[in-house]
Amino acid sequence: MTLTQGLFITIEGTEGMGKSTVIASLSEFLKEKGFDYLLTREPGGTEIAEKIRQVILAHYDETMQAETELLLYFAGRLQHVQTVVLPAKSAGKIVISDRFTDASFAYQGGGRQIPVEKIRLLEQHFINDLQPDLTLLLDAPIEVGLNRIASRGEKDRIEIENIAFFERVRESYHQRAREYPNRFRLIDAGGSVEEVQEKVHHIFNEFFSK
Amino acid sequence: MTLTQGLFITIEGTEGMGKSTVIASLSEFLKEKGFDYLLTREPGGTEIAEKIRQVILAHYDETMQAETELLLYFAGRLQHVQTVVLPAKSAGKIVISDRFTDASFAYQGGGRQIPVEKIRLLEQHFINDLQPDLTLLLDAPIEVGLNRIASRGEKDRIEIENIAFFERVRESYHQRAREYPNRFRLIDAGGSVEEVQEKVHHIFNEFFSK
Repeated sequence: MTLTQGLFITIEGTEGMGKSTVIASLSEFLKEKGFDYLLTREPGGTEIAEKIRQVILAHYDETMQAETELLLYFAGRLQHVQTVVLPAKSAGKIVISDRFTDASFAYQGGGRQIPVEKIRLLEQHFINDLQPDLTLLLDAPIEVGLNRIASRGEKDRIEIENIAFFERVRESYHQRAREYPNRFRLIDAGGSVEEVQEKVHHIFNEFFSK
Repeated sequence: MTLTQGLFITIEGTEGMGKSTVIASLSEFLKEKGFDYLLTREPGGTEIAEKIRQVILAHYDETMQAETELLLYFAGRLQHVQTVVLPAKSAGKIVISDRFTDASFAYQGGGRQIPVEKIRLLEQHFINDLQPDLTLLLDAPIEVGLNRIASRGEKDRIEIENIAFFERVRESYHQRAREYPNRFRLIDAGGSVEEVQEKVHHIFNEFFSK
């Protein structure tokens, strides 16, 4: 089934909240329902944007300026939006992105404390204020996620940040959810995989019945 | 000799105008005069900014969006300004950069035809409208430069553009020079190396005698 107008769905949340599991479950669900969908991610999602991702996440002897990081995220985002998201959406597909601009407000705004106005400026002028149709925010206390990822391999330049950083990220995600109540769905990610999946399915059934 | 206040000098021009020769001659001149100087370049100039340079100049199967390119240039520039240019200038050094923001107005504004307002927005909000103290613009008909670089090795993603593109770049450089007459010095780069060097020395002697 191809929709006449596509949909843009984003999955957000701090580290270890189970985004990958939710995305896997979501694609299973969409496949069963016969939807034409596309999974993508940020930073990344295109050949060039993946190169930018590598620059963002690598470790350096030098400190990356917070606003350098912000501009790199938007460079990759613009490329991703123009090359993947908008063309697929225009073709009637459901585009599901593992993170999008909300993550810049959360990580670079909340985490790195860049004034929100600067991020808005880039959002307005470089991605035409594109907002997702639906955003699932997986949310639980920071420690829950950090415990889950403790056993994972080497951490990237952002995953090595401290708890206070991630607390600010979480708070900024909440703030963003309050600003866009129509598209945000807050999901308690503290429960079991089954519980989270059930919530996601519930949200989707409700969303698609409209 | 270390100045109490440093200087920021930029060298601009299209391909094959002899920037490298001028920079070499300039550093010889500054060394002789006993100045404490630093040579740097854009895109690049720091570990992270050089990584961004690689992303900008590489070839891809995918088309890089003009504004992706612009954001990448400013990401690298911000990093370069904060990490190299401002600290060295504060320490009283003469910082000489092979290209700076004027090149974004010329290449991404003129060449890629991105509205000037978008570039100004980034210049104002992300590098605090930092302007060089002196800018040498090496200028000659586009063909002169393209003939000179014809024998060079593999061209990067920007050098492969056509003559119309570089004509727009040149015109935007002229426009920028008219906007900032105090810091711009237009140098006819069509002459011999000796003639160009003589002009550069003349400009510098005049500049430092003030």
